Amino acid sequence: MNQDYIVPNNWSIIEEGFDAERIKSSESLFSIGNGAMGQRANFEESYSGETFQGSYIAGIYYPDKTKVGWWKNGYPEYFAKVLNAPNWIGIDIEINGENLDLNTCTEVKNFERELNMKEGWYHRSFEATLKNGTQIKVDVRRFLSLDSDELGVINYEITPLNKDAKIVYKPYIDAGVKNEDANWEEKFWEPLDTKHSDNEAFVVARTFKTHFNVATYMSNSIFLNGKNLNSTPVNVEATSEKILFVYETEAAKGEKSSIQKFGGYTVSLNHENSQLISAAQSVIVKANAKGYEVLLQEQIDAWSKIWEMSDITIDGDVKAQQGIRFNIFQLNQTYLGKDSRLNIGPKGFTGEKYGGSTYWDTEAYCIPFYMATKDQQVARNLLTYRYNQLDKAIENGEKLGFTNGAALFPMVTMNGEECHNEWEITFEEIHRNGAIAFAIYNYHRFTGDYSYIPEKGLEVLIAIARFWHQRATLSTLKDQFVILGVTGPNEYENNVNNNFYTNYLAKWCIDYAVEQIEKVEKEYAADYSRIISKTKLETAEIINWKKVADKMYLPYSEEHDVYLQQDGFLDKELVKVHDLDKSQRPINQKWSWDRILRSPYIKQADVLQGFYFFENHFSKEQLERHFDFYEPFTVHESSLSPCVHSIQAATLGRMEQAYTFYLRTSRLDLDDYNKEVEEGCHITSMAGTWMSIVEGFGGLRVKNDSLHFEPKIPEQWQGYSFKINFRNQILQVFVNANETKFTLEGTQELTVYVNGKAVLVEPNTLVTV
Amino acid sequence: MNQDYIVPNNWSIIEEGFDAERIKSSESLFSIGNGAMGQRANFEESYSGETFQGSYIAGIYYPDKTKVGWWKNGYPEYFAKVLNAPNWIGIDIEINGENLDLNTCTEVKNFERELNMKEGWYHRSFEATLKNGTQIKVDVRRFLSLDSDELGVINYEITPLNKDAKIVYKPYIDAGVKNEDANWEEKFWEPLDTKHSDNEAFVVARTFKTHFNVATYMSNSIFLNGKNLNSTPVNVEATSEKILFVYETEAAKGEKSSIQKFGGYTVSLNHENSQLISAAQSVIVKANAKGYEVLLQEQIDAWSKIWEMSDITIDGDVKAQQGIRFNIFQLNQTYLGKDSRLNIGPKGFTGEKYGGSTYWDTEAYCIPFYMATKDQQVARNLLTYRYNQLDKAIENGEKLGFTNGAALFPMVTMNGEECHNEWEITFEEIHRNGAIAFAIYNYHRFTGDYSYIPEKGLEVLIAIARFWHQRATLSTLKDQFVILGVTGPNEYENNVNNNFYTNYLAKWCIDYAVEQIEKVEKEYAADYSRIISKTKLETAEIINWKKVADKMYLPYSEEHDVYLQQDGFLDKELVKVHDLDKSQRPINQKWSWDRILRSPYIKQADVLQGFYFFENHFSKEQLERHFDFYEPFTVHESSLSPCVHSIQAATLGRMEQAYTFYLRTSRLDLDDYNKEVEEGCHITSMAGTWMSIVEGFGGLRVKNDSLHFEPKIPEQWQGYSFKINFRNQILQVFVNANETKFTLEGTQELTVYVNGKAVLVEPNTLVTV
Repeated sequence: MNQDYIVPNNWSIIEEGFDAERIKSSESLFSIGNGAMGQRANFEESYSGETFQGSYIAGIYYPDKTKVGWWKNGYPEYFAKVLNAPNWIGIDIEINGENLDLNTCTEVKNFERELNMKEGWYHRSFEATLKNGTQIKVDVRRFLSLDSDELGVINYEITPLNKDAKIVYKPYIDAGVKNEDANWEEKFWEPLDTKHSDNEAFVVARTFKTHFNVATYMSNSIFLNGKNLNSTPVNVEATSEKILFVYETEAAKGEKSSIQKFGGYTVSLNHENSQLISAAQSVIVKANAKGYEVLLQEQIDAWSKIWEMSDITIDGDVKAQQGIRFNIFQLNQTYLGKDSRLNIGPKGFTGEKYGGSTYWDTEAYCIPFYMATKDQQVARNLLTYRYNQLDKAIENGEKLGFTNGAALFPMVTMNGEECHNEWEITFEEIHRNGAIAFAIYNYHRFTGDYSYIPEKGLEVLIAIARFWHQRATLSTLKDQFVILGVTGPNEYENNVNNNFYTNYLAKWCIDYAVEQIEKVEKEYAADYSRIISKTKLETAEIINWKKVADKMYLPYSEEHDVYLQQDGFLDKELVKVHDLDKSQRPINQKWSWDRILRSPYIKQADVLQGFYFFENHFSKEQLERHFDFYEPFTVHESSLSPCVHSIQAATLGRMEQAYTFYLRTSRLDLDDYNKEVEEGCHITSMAGTWMSIVEGFGGLRVKNDSLHFEPKIPEQWQGYSFKINFRNQILQVFVNANETKFTLEGTQELTVYVNGKAVLVEPNTLVTV
Repeated sequence: MNQDYIVPNNWSIIEEGFDAERIKSSESLFSIGNGAMGQRANFEESYSGETFQGSYIAGIYYPDKTKVGWWKNGYPEYFAKVLNAPNWIGIDIEINGENLDLNTCTEVKNFERELNMKEGWYHRSFEATLKNGTQIKVDVRRFLSLDSDELGVINYEITPLNKDAKIVYKPYIDAGVKNEDANWEEKFWEPLDTKHSDNEAFVVARTFKTHFNVATYMSNSIFLNGKNLNSTPVNVEATSEKILFVYETEAAKGEKSSIQKFGGYTVSLNHENSQLISAAQSVIVKANAKGYEVLLQEQIDAWSKIWEMSDITIDGDVKAQQGIRFNIFQLNQTYLGKDSRLNIGPKGFTGEKYGGSTYWDTEAYCIPFYMATKDQQVARNLLTYRYNQLDKAIENGEKLGFTNGAALFPMVTMNGEECHNEWEITFEEIHRNGAIAFAIYNYHRFTGDYSYIPEKGLEVLIAIARFWHQRATLSTLKDQFVILGVTGPNEYENNVNNNFYTNYLAKWCIDYAVEQIEKVEKEYAADYSRIISKTKLETAEIINWKKVADKMYLPYSEEHDVYLQQDGFLDKELVKVHDLDKSQRPINQKWSWDRILRSPYIKQADVLQGFYFFENHFSKEQLERHFDFYEPFTVHESSLSPCVHSIQAATLGRMEQAYTFYLRTSRLDLDDYNKEVEEGCHITSMAGTWMSIVEGFGGLRVKNDSLHFEPKIPEQWQGYSFKINFRNQILQVFVNANETKFTLEGTQELTVYVNGKAVLVEPNTLVTV
């Protein structure tokens, strides 16, 4: 953890000073993305120090050959993973004959990075003295256009400070990239074609095996003191995978020389292969027509619209404010909800770790954020993503021995194929299936849009119910159904029997599927017969499902009056985390795996995840008892842990604890709690941060088609506000220690409930409670 | 399974006919070894078809870099594994200008292999027609000398059948070999030096990292019609890692041309690095002085001595006879017990699979065979091997968080380092520690030699008791000690709680260690104070151990009146193997891993392994009940499974079942039950085959320092016999349907018990019961 790394600021992420040790961490934190592509904050100019180069294109993946120690039946031979894409940002720079490289300059001062979240751009500036004695000032601004999501923009300015300078710009595009996360150090890109003319260049490459074609392009202009010199390259260096232009220019001491580079990708997901270069040309034409200043203003406007809906303000706590905005900003950089083929990778566009793009994080943590801050189509696209992968989930089930259309959705995926290869997770962390069903329920609960279920959702629910029915087995000893050999959300337990969360969710999935079948049968007859005919569902089958749900075993301790995380939990040595020597933590770094497994320590909410999903099934007393029983054993070594506990602590009125959890979730990356931010940011848990405020402090719940609030505020804050798109009505909520205020956009009134009391909110009128 | 592969024969393994599909399987089955080195039955001449080249040197290993899918804390970075050694057998052959290659000959007939187990040699013969029309007959005999264990001998004869032939012999030695089982396809050998003169050549190479130095050598002589031509090479091709001699000779039609090649290794385990070549030269000098015929006779004599003590005869069942001799022969080829740095690899010198050389197989399965058929020093050497690795076992324990000298011996090892990388095995299959303690007990029980315990064994017992004490935890719920998160011998269960076998063994280990501490304290005062001072053992510690042993939880079912394999076993769907569709088996090929785990199916004896070790702790009724409960769920998909069940079936008088299990264990490789013999033979389970006859059918037990027998015989047999070295008295036992006969060597009488009745056996007198 490093609390002094990032300068506190309401709207920007700022780093001051050049520290080679922090390069990789800052490359993660200052990453930019526009939903369609993104990249780590690598330098444009060459850098010979340690760096982690990464550019990524949404939806472009590679089926890397599996690497395992010992093969287990059922493992996928290949799995799709996030792919480092060709580099379009590179600009090698020569100053008076010397290559600019911050790692070899004799002095670097006033180095600063700023990620301006309000306006959606990244800026870097510094003064450097080269070995040849030339001093220069550099200012670089870069952004990825939200409006034209195939376009990236760089404005790179150099001012010689102590003498005139001959400046050579060598912008390039390069498909010769490697993945940090490749299993076998293979190349994933095959160059197909290059083209260049005047100031434009194109490299077309395709991924091996998956054959995604991508044109990477650039278009460059050289300026002096803001005036376009209309330069053309004096030289072009071209190979089959890289094109580099050489521009020579001179700047007198104090003059501002600059290069504007437009670049990005056009990809075969969105264009015909044969049209990739012409599509890129058309992006360039439009960008040149607008010019840099207009593009920047459009970017500012586009981000302004996003913030208008999704901003959360916090008064009196800059670090908390910066934290929540960083989380909201990153989520919007990663996924904008326009395309149901895309999803939210755990590292977004900030790194490669964790392989694929889609985890149960999406359903359990991200959907609430997108439902409340976007049009409902966005969440619907996330649900549709799984619907479109249902066939592969059924195949995945078959691979593991399930039949009759039972689906097991993958633990990690890009395209529906399983991307994970640890048996205890891949085969056993099956609760993910439950989260996918829960998201359908949650979507309907929040948006009121039932149409998704007859159109698509019911098929998913049936396939999931079939899975649970087959996966449970009858214990003749207990005369109840048991679910053996699972891993729950708490991955510090593997291959356990009767994980409460999994069993409860399985039972709920079946019950919910049966309810929806009945409802669709009654109310959507045409859909019903289509689905019945497609799934070959029979009444007898449903009766068998119900037997499982009705007789599902849930481990319980009479002594402690709590559900047990799994069979045998009470046989453990129940030493609380608080009583564990600090030198032993984090246990995932200090302890061997077997020791972790036999300990009582919980990585992230497990039983409590069940209480989070199904809060309304339990009394507040039950929640309190379970929270008091399990939280003391929880080490929160997953980025997904603090948010759920923050919400529950707030629900129980334990504001100090809720606030501590909140800080941990919201500044996890900014303060680098786990000393791993150099691998990328924890994108999906950022949605949990949003939930901590809205559901935790704000106490937002949807019950009976209405919004309910139980507003609370941490002592450290003077006030906070957030906005909710509830069924196309935009409600803003302001909370301070004394009162809660609401404003409503539009023309229709809305009744909300505050601490159980109905409050009528008239449009465009401040209501204070 | 292929029952027609090997020709039934009492003393030889014979293959008739050339089948390219069987090359790799035969390379395994016809492997030869002499305890110090060994090799697969690769052809001497070049072969362009599919083959698995393998030569191995006992005790020479390489620390290969770990390959895992996902790293777990505690995994070793490197692990030592069996290493493919330089090739000394190669002889390229040219006949009338054409390279001899059975894969390209126009005809191959009368191809035969014979592994003569009685005399210890391997012979291959065939007639081939080359593409150039020359027909030749080839006869090759090869053996690895038992008397001079650095020496291998090849006699390669060629007779042109249809025309005169110019024959070019190109014998070579080559250190440029690769491991099939390399994790990263790296080379493991670095060539250091070569030397050649006249007919001798030497390549010195060393292993990377471990720096074992090995001189590989050859010495060649060319004969015509049995007369040494005293030829010298007409050409030498030498690189840094390979030397090849070219000998040209001519043979008229019908004349017998031959090359005798002596070759092998001298290694830095046994010689100074600087002396390797001269040591090899001295082997050559001695071999040349004796000549081929004498060497062969010495080999026959040496094997005759081995057979004299270890042979088992079976009358009336050639396949059973061939099976048991193959097992005994392979065990003797693999390990002769001369060197406590060596052990018994699961594939011996027949392949590379399973990495290291030492498993708990040695203690649980092999030691009884070596104790009964060799001098007691041999078994003592096997115990000493573990004693010498105790420090590494303590380090291994520390790596997993154990303290105070607690040892966890590795699951798989060459040098004491852990060589396995699956957490559920590496960290959790801890019962191996128990087998190591049990072997000490078993050694003393059988040999009567207590001296090993004060000298070495007690330190091992203390370190193991410390491990179990720390590894068990108090369940306040049960008020008993539990052992959580283990894998038992049945590897089809992972990370279970309270595996009966493990818990029982742990308790026994502590009790046994405490008894031995008390005995050594009383009877070996000097050893006692040395050990106490070395181990810093305190009385209070022992009291704490005893608490664990005294309150060890053993899962039990009142309903079934059996100990339960682990907590929760009865929650499984208890469908017997018999009721499982045949198409589903073997489940390790047909089912995904998670499905195997949640099934009730048992890979190999688990609870019953406990009943095997501690038969005397239980009544025959208890054994029967447990056998009847567990065997029906046992799929015997480990090579170590049938033998234990064969013994127990025989003990229970179920001879038909015992015989079926016997055949399966004894002909596992010969009949290729598991279709994997091409990877190598199952060496360690071969000792289980021996146990099936001696302990199963013969009913041999040692009780109160005496031999007890309960002889039985399968219907299919007319009689069988075996020999036992019991405390330096050699007793031969003959069993037929009606009677049991004994003869005793030496001068002292011996009282044995047959079905509980004392029988006095006088030396050199046949006693019939």
